[in-house]
Amino acid sequence: MDVRQFVRLGRKIVAVGRNYRAHAAELGNTVPEQPMVFLKPTSSYVTQGRPIVIPPRVTELHHEVELGVVIGKEGRDIPKSSALSHVAGYALALDMTARNLQNEAKKKGHPWSVAKGYDTFCPVSDFIDRDQLDWSSCTLWLKVDGQEKQRGSTSNMIFPIPDLLAFISSIFTLEPGDLILTGTPEGVGPVVPGQTITAGLDDFLEMTFPVVGPR
Amino acid sequence: MDVRQFVRLGRKIVAVGRNYRAHAAELGNTVPEQPMVFLKPTSSYVTQGRPIVIPPRVTELHHEVELGVVIGKEGRDIPKSSALSHVAGYALALDMTARNLQNEAKKKGHPWSVAKGYDTFCPVSDFIDRDQLDWSSCTLWLKVDGQEKQRGSTSNMIFPIPDLLAFISSIFTLEPGDLILTGTPEGVGPVVPGQTITAGLDDFLEMTFPVVGPR
Ligand SMILES: [Mg+2]
Ligand SMILES: [Mg+2]
Ligand SMILES: [Mg+2]
Repeated sequence: MDVRQFVRLGRKIVAVGRNYRAHAAELGNTVPEQPMVFLKPTSSYVTQGRPIVIPPRVTELHHEVELGVVIGKEGRDIPKSSALSHVAGYALALDMTARNLQNEAKKKGHPWSVAKGYDTFCPVSDFIDRDQLDWSSCTLWLKVDGQEKQRGSTSNMIFPIPDLLAFISSIFTLEPGDLILTGTPEGVGPVVPGQTITAGLDDFLEMTFPVVGPR
Repeated sequence: MDVRQFVRLGRKIVAVGRNYRAHAAELGNTVPEQPMVFLKPTSSYVTQGRPIVIPPRVTELHHEVELGVVIGKEGRDIPKSSALSHVAGYALALDMTARNLQNEAKKKGHPWSVAKGYDTFCPVSDFIDRDQLDWSSCTLWLKVDGQEKQRGSTSNMIFPIPDLLAFISSIFTLEPGDLILTGTPEGVGPVVPGQTITAGLDDFLEMTFPVVGPR
């Protein structure tokens, strides 16, 4: 499998919530003792050139900029010490979240899948080869209509990538082309139709997505 | 894509909770106004010949026998009236559930993905061609060590298959090889290592899975 084609060929997206202390705090959440894990469907992928669509029932769509890890080698119960050998590369990603539906789901004890899973809720960049990035300290940033909303360093993750891969692979077998979303730094907030999101990784990658209303 | 290979090639499993009145009641849940939807990863598939594995943190693993619908044609915002044209066939499936982790997740407002998604938590039968099954009134049954625990007719679904496909495709684009789990009738309950689950569809399909402890 050509993992650079993870958007077209990958079979799962595993996302981690509350992996930056300041973001957990801004939503009034405590810092978890172990990673909080949820799934997004691969049908939620969208790549540059197409818009992020706000669905009808979604009154509050939030941006969450995250570093994505693309798996290159199958594994389960992966030890932390060899976890990085399962990484083929990275991608910049947005974990778009219907915050109104997520808040309702949390209150009722319902699943998060709808709030996290609509079509176009996972905008992603092209594949970045593992050699091109220092995963342990790169900077993620996000602007809405040119105004900076999020900026954070992956060095502030509560559970760094090897810990995440060890934990997640104790639950789900990781397969080539899977994407792991590693959590968002503080500054999440709403977007509305007509706005444009620009997000980047250090200086070397930038991506842009217009936001539109229901089709 | 050869949809008979949905286990190997499919990209998502969308499951529906509380779609039979008597099952909603047995877990103390109200009947939902719209389908309750969650995701299981395709890495949770297991086919006959391999066991269902109870993971270390799972103190209460429940069986839920369900009719699976295999999608044959891509679609989003599918109208009820043409929904069945998107169905390639069916499969018998077990929506294995870590009830202890699910109860904890519900209480805390956390996602269900781990409780529903461990490896081997989606045992499935071979593909059943759509012409071989009357989806609107077939009988699902499940035995543990030969003793019947679940028996129900798909005619008792709260949201029948066309309604489910219309609702789900308003959230997620459905793609060939996707599997929809349509909910379980009453009688869910725990299994322990050493037991054997047999499940069937009417008289014409039967499948067997041994249950084992942590590897
Ligand atoms: Mg969930
Ligand atoms: Mg996130
Ligand atoms: Mg179920």
